[in-house]
Amino acid sequence: MPQQNVQTKVLRTICPDAKGLIAKITNICYKHELNIVQNNEFVDHRTGRFFMRTELEGIFNDNTLLADLDSALPKGSVRELQSTGRRRIVVLVTKEAHCLGDLLMKSAYGGLDVEIAAVIGNHDTLQTLVERFDIPFHLVSHDGLTREQHDSAMIEQIDQYQPDYVVLAKYMRVLTPGFVQHYPHQVINIHHSFLPAFIGARPYHQAYERGVKIIGATAHYVNDSLDEGPIIMQDVINVDHTYTAEDMMRAGRDVEKNVLSRALYRVLTQRVFVYGNRTVIL
Amino acid sequence: MPQQNVQTKVLRTICPDAKGLIAKITNICYKHELNIVQNNEFVDHRTGRFFMRTELEGIFNDNTLLADLDSALPKGSVRELQSTGRRRIVVLVTKEAHCLGDLLMKSAYGGLDVEIAAVIGNHDTLQTLVERFDIPFHLVSHDGLTREQHDSAMIEQIDQYQPDYVVLAKYMRVLTPGFVQHYPHQVINIHHSFLPAFIGARPYHQAYERGVKIIGATAHYVNDSLDEGPIIMQDVINVDHTYTAEDMMRAGRDVEKNVLSRALYRVLTQRVFVYGNRTVIL
Amino acid sequence: MPQQNVQTKVLRTICPDAKGLIAKITNICYKHELNIVQNNEFVDHRTGRFFMRTELEGIFNDNTLLADLDSALPKGSVRELQSTGRRRIVVLVTKEAHCLGDLLMKSAYGGLDVEIAAVIGNHDTLQTLVERFDIPFHLVSHDGLTREQHDSAMIEQIDQYQPDYVVLAKYMRVLTPGFVQHYPHQVINIHHSFLPAFIGARPYHQAYERGVKIIGATAHYVNDSLDEGPIIMQDVINVDHTYTAEDMMRAGRDVEKNVLSRALYRVLTQRVFVYGNRTVIL
Amino acid sequence: MPQQNVQTKVLRTICPDAKGLIAKITNICYKHELNIVQNNEFVDHRTGRFFMRTELEGIFNDNTLLADLDSALPKGSVRELQSTGRRRIVVLVTKEAHCLGDLLMKSAYGGLDVEIAAVIGNHDTLQTLVERFDIPFHLVSHDGLTREQHDSAMIEQIDQYQPDYVVLAKYMRVLTPGFVQHYPHQVINIHHSFLPAFIGARPYHQAYERGVKIIGATAHYVNDSLDEGPIIMQDVINVDHTYTAEDMMRAGRDVEKNVLSRALYRVLTQRVFVYGNRTVIL
Repeated sequence: MPQQNVQTKVLRTICPDAKGLIAKITNICYKHELNIVQNNEFVDHRTGRFFMRTELEGIFNDNTLLADLDSALPKGSVRELQSTGRRRIVVLVTKEAHCLGDLLMKSAYGGLDVEIAAVIGNHDTLQTLVERFDIPFHLVSHDGLTREQHDSAMIEQIDQYQPDYVVLAKYMRVLTPGFVQHYPHQVINIHHSFLPAFIGARPYHQAYERGVKIIGATAHYVNDSLDEGPIIMQDVINVDHTYTAEDMMRAGRDVEKNVLSRALYRVLTQRVFVYGNRTVIL
Repeated sequence: MPQQNVQTKVLRTICPDAKGLIAKITNICYKHELNIVQNNEFVDHRTGRFFMRTELEGIFNDNTLLADLDSALPKGSVRELQSTGRRRIVVLVTKEAHCLGDLLMKSAYGGLDVEIAAVIGNHDTLQTLVERFDIPFHLVSHDGLTREQHDSAMIEQIDQYQPDYVVLAKYMRVLTPGFVQHYPHQVINIHHSFLPAFIGARPYHQAYERGVKIIGATAHYVNDSLDEGPIIMQDVINVDHTYTAEDMMRAGRDVEKNVLSRALYRVLTQRVFVYGNRTVIL
Repeated sequence: MPQQNVQTKVLRTICPDAKGLIAKITNICYKHELNIVQNNEFVDHRTGRFFMRTELEGIFNDNTLLADLDSALPKGSVRELQSTGRRRIVVLVTKEAHCLGDLLMKSAYGGLDVEIAAVIGNHDTLQTLVERFDIPFHLVSHDGLTREQHDSAMIEQIDQYQPDYVVLAKYMRVLTPGFVQHYPHQVINIHHSFLPAFIGARPYHQAYERGVKIIGATAHYVNDSLDEGPIIMQDVINVDHTYTAEDMMRAGRDVEKNVLSRALYRVLTQRVFVYGNRTVIL
Repeated sequence: MPQQNVQTKVLRTICPDAKGLIAKITNICYKHELNIVQNNEFVDHRTGRFFMRTELEGIFNDNTLLADLDSALPKGSVRELQSTGRRRIVVLVTKEAHCLGDLLMKSAYGGLDVEIAAVIGNHDTLQTLVERFDIPFHLVSHDGLTREQHDSAMIEQIDQYQPDYVVLAKYMRVLTPGFVQHYPHQVINIHHSFLPAFIGARPYHQAYERGVKIIGATAHYVNDSLDEGPIIMQDVINVDHTYTAEDMMRAGRDVEKNVLSRALYRVLTQRVFVYGNRTVIL
C-alpha cells in the first residue's frame, strides 16, 4: 500500500493568535503519529497573527489530518500541507546572463532543489546559454504588442509548464496587474538595488550620483506596485569613490545572483510566509 | 495575594528527542493557563537532543508547573524556569577600556538590561572610569600571588556580589580550572581573534604576520581549555595591506566590544543553550 | 631654531587633471627635502578632477612650499597644508547617549585623536554623562526660540571653543542654512538610516513598515538639504521578521555609533575630500 | 607605424623605499609623454619596501622607458611593464562544479576579462559542463601515478596552452614543490575555509565540530607549504546551530566562488603584488 510509505511534508499555518495553538497543532500531529523533524513558529504581537512551519515525517493521511486541524484552529486560519522536495520553476529573462547562469548551474549541479522547466526571454540573447543546459528556451518578443498582449503571450507559454514559481532573473519589463494576479505569491524578482533606495530605472547610476558607500540587491515577491512587493532577502557590498556606475554594476551582479539564489532556496524549502507587505521566514 | 500577579518567565528545556515533546510541554503550559509569548525549539538530529525556549506569560505556580513537566519529560531532561528581566554581572578587566566602557554605557543608558554590580581589575588603570559611573571597583593585584591564590582572591570579591554572570572584558589572565568550575556556564569572555584562528598570545600580530584580509572577535563561554569554550557570537571586519598590527588592534576594538555586547544580550535574555562544546541560540 | 624640527604634515590637492601632476607635486616635495610617508591620489575621469593626499615628513617652510606648488599647479587648484595630530570638536546632542558615549570613551581612552572641547544639548538629559568625563556641557534650549534664534545661540556657544569640526551625535534638530554655511564642510552628522532609504522622520519605523531585511546608518557632511550631504561612511546589519521597530532601534544604535566614529576617524586624519555631493577618501 | 598606436599599459614597481621615488618614476613617465590614468603606491614602513602600480596611456617605447627606469631606481628594484587586457588561464578541477561554473559564465558573459584556454581534471566529472561552453577538457587521472608523475603530466597539458595563470577551482590534490616552482606566483587556489582556521582536510566538518558562528573562504597564491601561500582575498558568511556540516558546505560554495572570482579580478588587472608571504593590492 503506497500510502503507507514514510514521507516528509511541511505543514504551514497562519492564523489569529490564541492560547494553546502550538499545543493543539502538535497534539494533532502526535495523534497522527507524525514525528516533528523541525518546528518553527512566530507570533506577530502587533497584528496578533500566528505563523508556524512544521516539518513532519511519517505516514500521512492528508484528509483526516487537515480536517482535524480545521476543527481545532480558529476561524480565519490558513493551513497548507505540501510534500517536500524538488520544485519546478519557469525563469523569465531579458539579456543579462548572471542570475540565469547561477540558477542553471545550481539546478544542474546542486545548490537548489529545483527543475528549470523552461526559460522565456523577450530577447533571444540568452538562448544559446539555456540550450547548453538542455532546457527549452522560448522567445516571446514584445515587439508590436501592448503590455497586456505581451503578458498574455508570456502566460500562455508559462502555463504549459505548470510551474510552482515564476522567477524573474533580470527580466527588465514591468508586469501587468493581470500577470501578477495570475500567479499569486508565485512571482519572485531580483531588484538591482537595496530597496527602497533607488526605486526605478538605472539604480546603479542613481547610486553613483548619490555617492553612496554601499550598494545592494533585493529579492522580493512581485505585487501590483512595481518594486514594492514583500522583501525576502537583501544583501550589500561596499563600494568607494573609485567605482564608476559601470563598476557598481559589475560588482553588483554577484550580489544580485547570490541574493536571488538564497531567497529562492528559502522559498523552495517552504520557509517564506507572506503576510501583508512583509515576509516571515521560518 | 502576590503570586497572582501576571509575570513573564522563560522555560528552557534540554532533553533527548522523542515524539510528542512539543505537544507535551505546550499542553502543560496550556493547562496552567499560561500564554506562550514566544516559542523556539531546535532538534540536533546528530545527537538526538531537543532544545526549547518558551517565553510564558500568566500567573505561575512554579512548583506544580515543574512537577508536571518532570513527569512528562523523558529521563535525562533538564528544565529551568526563570523570571525575565534585569540580570546582575561582575566585570573583570585589566587595562583596556573599550569593552568595559561599552558595558557601562549600555547598563546606564540602555541597550543591555543588566546591573554591573562591580568591576574587578588586576590593575587599577580603569578605576577612574568605573567610579565615574558610580560603580564599585576593586583592585585584586596578582603581584606575588600564585595563579591559584589570585583566582581565590578574585572569587572572594566576586562572590560577595552574587552575580548571575562573570564577564571578562579584556581580562588578560588565564583562569585556573578551579575558577572556571566555580562558575559553570557563567563566565563569558571576549577573545580578540576570529577563533580558532590565532589562538594564543598577540592575535593581531599573528594576523598581521599571516597577511589575512579579515580579522574578527569571538565571544565564548570559558571552559578549562583556554580559548576553547563554546562560541556564542563572532564578527569580523575587512583589513588590507595598509593595516599594521596596531591598526588592526585599533579597528578590532570596535568589533570586540560589539561582539561581547551582542553575545551578552543573548545570554541575558536566556537565549543561549550550551551543549557539549557548542551553543544553540533560540 | 624651532622651525628646524622634523614635523609631519598633510598636503591635500584638488585640481583639474593634467599630464604630469604627480611628477610636479612630488618633485617640489623632493626639492624641499621632504619625505613622502604616504601618498594617495585619485582621478575622477568623469569630471576631470585630480585629488591627492600626501603625508610628508621633514623640516617645513610652509610659505615657500605653497608658493612653489601654486606656480606649478593649474588654475583652479585648491591645496591645503596642515599639521597632523589631535583635532578639536564640539559635539551637539539631544537625548540619546550612545554616539556621545562612544566619542567620550574614544577621546579619553584612545581610538580617536580628538579633544572634545564641549558638548551642547538642546535638552539637559546628557549633562551628567558629559560631566562624568570632565567636559563642559551647555544647555541651549530651543524653547520659545525660532529656529534661527536657536541656531544663533548654538553658534555663539560653539564658536567660543573654535572647533575644527562640529559633530552631530544624534542631534535631533534640523539646522538652518545659516548654521550650515557658518561651518562649511565642518559639520558631520550620523543619520539613523541607510540613506537615501528612509529619509525623514522615524526611519526605523519606516524600515519596519517596509519589511526590509537590512538596516543601516550613514555618516555625512551636512549641507543645506536635510539628509542630503556628501556621504562619508555607511554600514548595515541584518534584521528579520522578529525585529520590532524598537528592536531595530536598539540594534541600530551600535551601527550608528560605529559608523560615526569610523567616519570621524577618516575626517580627523584628513583623508576625506568633498567634491560636489560626493566624497573621495584617500 | 603600429608602434605609434595609443596603448594602455601597467607599470609595476617594487623597490627599497627612498626619498623621491614617486617623483623619479612619474618624471620618467612625463618625459615619455605618457598619461597617468591611475596611480597607486604603498610603502611598507616595517620592511622599507615601496610598491607602485601606474596605469599609463600613450605611445610606448618599452625599451627606453624601462632603461630610464632602471637607471633611476635603486638597486634591488623590480619593475614590470605589461599591456592591459584579456589574460589566459588554465583551470584545474576535481569534481565540484560551482567555482568552475562561475568562471565559465564570467569568461563567456562578462565579469572577468579572461580566456579559459582549457580545463584539466583528475576526474572526468566536469567534462560535460566544460564542453557545453566549447572549451577543451583534459582528463589527467592520477590513478597509478606517483604525485610527481601526475604533476608532470599536468604540467605537460598546461604548458601547451601557455597560460598567464593556473587557477585551482576546487582541485583537491596537494601539488608537488616542482609544480609550484614551475609557475612562480602564477597558481591561485580557493581554500574552503577562513585561513588560517581549519587548515587541512574537511574544513567544514572541522568548523561544525568547533561550533563556529562564521565560516569563510580564502583565495591565495600557492607556495610550497600547503594552505600557506600569500592571501589575496577572504570573505565570510554567518552560520548558526541549525547548520549541519553539509549545510555549511552548501552555503560555503557561494562564498568560495565569489572569493575566487573577486581575487582573480584583482590578479588579472595586475593589482596584486606579492612580497614575502603577504600581498599588497593596489
